[in-house]
Amino acid sequence: MGNEEQGAIYRDVVRAEWVDYNGHLRDAFYMLVFSFATDALLDAIGLDDEQRRSRHRSVYTLEAHVNYLHEIKEGVAIEVIVRVLAHDTKRMHLYLEMHADGHTGPVAASEQMMLHVDTNGASGPRAAPFDPDVIDCVRKHAAASAMLPPPSYTGRVIGLRRERSQVLGS
Amino acid sequence: MGNEEQGAIYRDVVRAEWVDYNGHLRDAFYMLVFSFATDALLDAIGLDDEQRRSRHRSVYTLEAHVNYLHEIKEGVAIEVIVRVLAHDTKRMHLYLEMHADGHTGPVAASEQMMLHVDTNGASGPRAAPFDPDVIDCVRKHAAASAMLPPPSYTGRVIGLRRERSQVLGS
Repeated sequence: MGNEEQGAIYRDVVRAEWVDYNGHLRDAFYMLVFSFATDALLDAIGLDDEQRRSRHRSVYTLEAHVNYLHEIKEGVAIEVIVRVLAHDTKRMHLYLEMHADGHTGPVAASEQMMLHVDTNGASGPRAAPFDPDVIDCVRKHAAASAMLPPPSYTGRVIGLRRERSQVLGS
Repeated sequence: MGNEEQGAIYRDVVRAEWVDYNGHLRDAFYMLVFSFATDALLDAIGLDDEQRRSRHRSVYTLEAHVNYLHEIKEGVAIEVIVRVLAHDTKRMHLYLEMHADGHTGPVAASEQMMLHVDTNGASGPRAAPFDPDVIDCVRKHAAASAMLPPPSYTGRVIGLRRERSQVLGS
């Protein structure tokens, strides 16, 4: 279950199969860790794997933005805190920050838009409102997330001009 | 080598280890396919693995935005076209579109900002200009990319209001 003071938390270690030839976590595998962290949030709002199957529900990622802030190496312990920045009856706007042993600030951040779907339709999955018990959990997580300092990496547009002051002092 | 009429192209098949319990490509593994496609572009501009090692160069992903447009299943053939939308002396702004057998439009799109780095520094990797032969290849890819129709998923900001008219008819 999620820690309601901080939002859902996911912990892991950078695995050997996730690193590139430099021994650093490959870009796509930051996203995999964020994906596992989103699963942890789903568990915490009552939509774990078993519930998703039995209720014929699922949650799709519509869009994800990721900022890569620091390289991290194989074997390093990592932790992701998942916040619910906003929600409506069918959607959650999430903010995820990855922290790693030996780094003071986040090593990556991600903004994601998730859509709740009914997987039981004859014509395929369709967007559907969260069930009442689930939306209640979503509201609790959103309220807890609102207590945290404002997120640093949201509302971003990619473009060359904006990137000049980016990481690595370039 | 890349096809200069279309930009670099990467082809693969949705692998068993990439799908979720529904048999669909998991969000993070779209990003892995895009990452392999970016490698294909690096090969095409003269920065393949061997060259990156011998020149002490690497290319880092600073930021990635991904739009998930359609679910795709295990075994489906996929193709990613990589465009260079813009560049400066050290950076490339890429646009990647993933197509899959049996779908008329793209199944996913991604915008990414890449940074060229010198990995040889005593104080760690530092942003560095592309070598002359490489920047020449980057320019050729950018010119070829400019001949394609405008990209559909660029300049995006995540937020609940914008998402209301999103996919799945919700």
